[in-house]
Amino acid sequence: MTHAALSARMDGLRSSAIRDLLTLTARPDVISLAGGLPDPDFIPRERISKAAHDALGDPSSVQYGETSGLRRLREVIAERESSKIGRALDVSEVVITHGSQQGLSLLAQVLLDAGDVVVVEEPAYTGALQVFRTAQARLVPVQLDEDGMDTDALEAKLAAGLRPKVVHTVSNFHNPRGAVLSAQRRAHLAALADRYGFWVLEDDPYGELYFGEKPPAPLAALSDRVIRLSSASKVLAPALRVGWLHGDRKVCEAVELIKQGADLCGSSLTQQIAADLFSDVEWFETHLDKLREGYGARAKALVTAAETELSGRARFSEVRGGMFCWMDFVDDVDTTELLGAALEHGVAFVPGSAFAVEADLGRSARLCFATYPEALLVDAVGRLRKSVTAGTA
Amino acid sequence: MTHAALSARMDGLRSSAIRDLLTLTARPDVISLAGGLPDPDFIPRERISKAAHDALGDPSSVQYGETSGLRRLREVIAERESSKIGRALDVSEVVITHGSQQGLSLLAQVLLDAGDVVVVEEPAYTGALQVFRTAQARLVPVQLDEDGMDTDALEAKLAAGLRPKVVHTVSNFHNPRGAVLSAQRRAHLAALADRYGFWVLEDDPYGELYFGEKPPAPLAALSDRVIRLSSASKVLAPALRVGWLHGDRKVCEAVELIKQGADLCGSSLTQQIAADLFSDVEWFETHLDKLREGYGARAKALVTAAETELSGRARFSEVRGGMFCWMDFVDDVDTTELLGAALEHGVAFVPGSAFAVEADLGRSARLCFATYPEALLVDAVGRLRKSVTAGTA
Repeated sequence: MTHAALSARMDGLRSSAIRDLLTLTARPDVISLAGGLPDPDFIPRERISKAAHDALGDPSSVQYGETSGLRRLREVIAERESSKIGRALDVSEVVITHGSQQGLSLLAQVLLDAGDVVVVEEPAYTGALQVFRTAQARLVPVQLDEDGMDTDALEAKLAAGLRPKVVHTVSNFHNPRGAVLSAQRRAHLAALADRYGFWVLEDDPYGELYFGEKPPAPLAALSDRVIRLSSASKVLAPALRVGWLHGDRKVCEAVELIKQGADLCGSSLTQQIAADLFSDVEWFETHLDKLREGYGARAKALVTAAETELSGRARFSEVRGGMFCWMDFVDDVDTTELLGAALEHGVAFVPGSAFAVEADLGRSARLCFATYPEALLVDAVGRLRKSVTAGTA
Repeated sequence: MTHAALSARMDGLRSSAIRDLLTLTARPDVISLAGGLPDPDFIPRERISKAAHDALGDPSSVQYGETSGLRRLREVIAERESSKIGRALDVSEVVITHGSQQGLSLLAQVLLDAGDVVVVEEPAYTGALQVFRTAQARLVPVQLDEDGMDTDALEAKLAAGLRPKVVHTVSNFHNPRGAVLSAQRRAHLAALADRYGFWVLEDDPYGELYFGEKPPAPLAALSDRVIRLSSASKVLAPALRVGWLHGDRKVCEAVELIKQGADLCGSSLTQQIAADLFSDVEWFETHLDKLREGYGARAKALVTAAETELSGRARFSEVRGGMFCWMDFVDDVDTTELLGAALEHGVAFVPGSAFAVEADLGRSARLCFATYPEALLVDAVGRLRKSVTAGTA
């Protein structure tokens, strides 16, 4: 293939806006609310180090592993997920993936042909958009509000003849919108899946990070048309690259077959570490409580400061968990332009347009409160106010 | 998608024969020459454990990393590869992948459209066949002999009008055939790539494991139409899931973009471990020498025993490195049938047909000598002779 042909192929793909921004915002003088990174101080490095040492006592920790994942890890995930969905999951229904991003990518390869319709949320998780665009799917957005995907709007599209193969939703503490899909809408979406025969990909990396009330039961509890994905990245460590999916057995088998070609298998070492940490239930629950408390305090600090400093200028989503707050300017602020000014003032965020499918999200932005302690978040909001004021002076 | 539709899609894929056999041969009474597994005793677990401990002193070891890989690892790979190909590789030309299997899979997604022609070797590495079949490529095999791919046969096909997008070769200590592509054929293949404009995927996980003479310089030294892939799996540990590729900058950029959607990034932890071990040059070279000596002794033990026990019944490839010996029965033995008898006698191998594209390889088989010490290999050959004798009694 010529360079020109390759470039054309590359132009068909969009680089993840967040990834590119990470490069821009890596300057040491910038407080970046742009990334979706856990705070390394909240990652249990010593516990991981001990688990690594223990794992490496066993020769199987350095060898190739099964494509579907280390059996002990699949067992502990099956057990945790069974309690969430209220029925006993068999180990054969669980596939370990290289983060839940790989799960999405493999599912797209299994379930989609070019031109198939995929319903995504508006705004959407950019990593999902990238996967579905690579699969050459036709993306149809459905609006999101504080209660998650507007399932009435989805039903109207279905009634009008839309026939999606897949509906993708980040059900808990949505990236980027922060929303939680309400129990009523979960039931509605599950019923629509059963009626119209599409697959729901319930993408849930943040569900454990609730600050007050626990989110409603997963969609996977309500329909066997749901494939549920989650990950150790937000609750243990991104570097373990451990995610998982469960659902329909035939789909899991197909995912496993595609994964053989994609990478043979995951890391036996990081999977043993994850199994060790997840199965140390007392330790893990205490760890989760610390994360909820820590991230909850940060969310509160950010939103309180932002509502004070930008009072009358912008509205902020109610943050009930996860890592993100969504900001909507009430007046005519272009957040992509604002990012330039913000970087000059030493603060960064992701402009709403990065998450847009069809809508104009030019006045919105995503703020991540997970990476820094409260004082720095308050400092960041001050810098943000200055850049807004400078832009409208 | 219905179960029937999913099954149909799954039937379009072939499960890796080796993977399925691994299940069959996992019985504790079986000496398996079927897998392609390094001996865990040859994997430096203590050194990895120390590296893991050191890495985990640094918060970046648990965080998300760059999609193209940890910079320090890319630097050390660029340095090692530069010395092999005789020119200075820039770090931007190196992408770290999740084993070289992921490299193959990403390259197929970047370079191939459905229906494109891919030249593969006959017999072929099954993991490559799986990748190219998933990409819906048209596979055209070219025969392999003791000097690697028959490039005259390839040239004849090109002269007759064949226009491949990609030519795949395992250039050193071929899996499964054991062959090394001769220097003359390397030059020929590189010249054909330049003339006809196809990409050569030089898949080289075994090149460091030479028992006597070092293999000729890589194909990547001879043409900029070569993308070179290799891996830490055979020289350090499979569980690190560290592979790499280098070559054309535009191709590397496209691979990185596809990798973003495929899995965001590799493991910062295992990449730091690999960087640590590769950059400890004195230790690593001593370690490589031990592997060469250890595996070399095993190869010699297996081939000597096999040539004695099966004298007149089968021929064996000359083993100069890597992990595999190729066996051809001279009389009418069906190795797939033989495997059944062999398992009853407590030994396993991979029948030649698992590696066949178009040829009849029913009398051949692949024997892996890497996993067991010499005495067990000799025992395995004794069991193999018994099963051959039983089959023809």
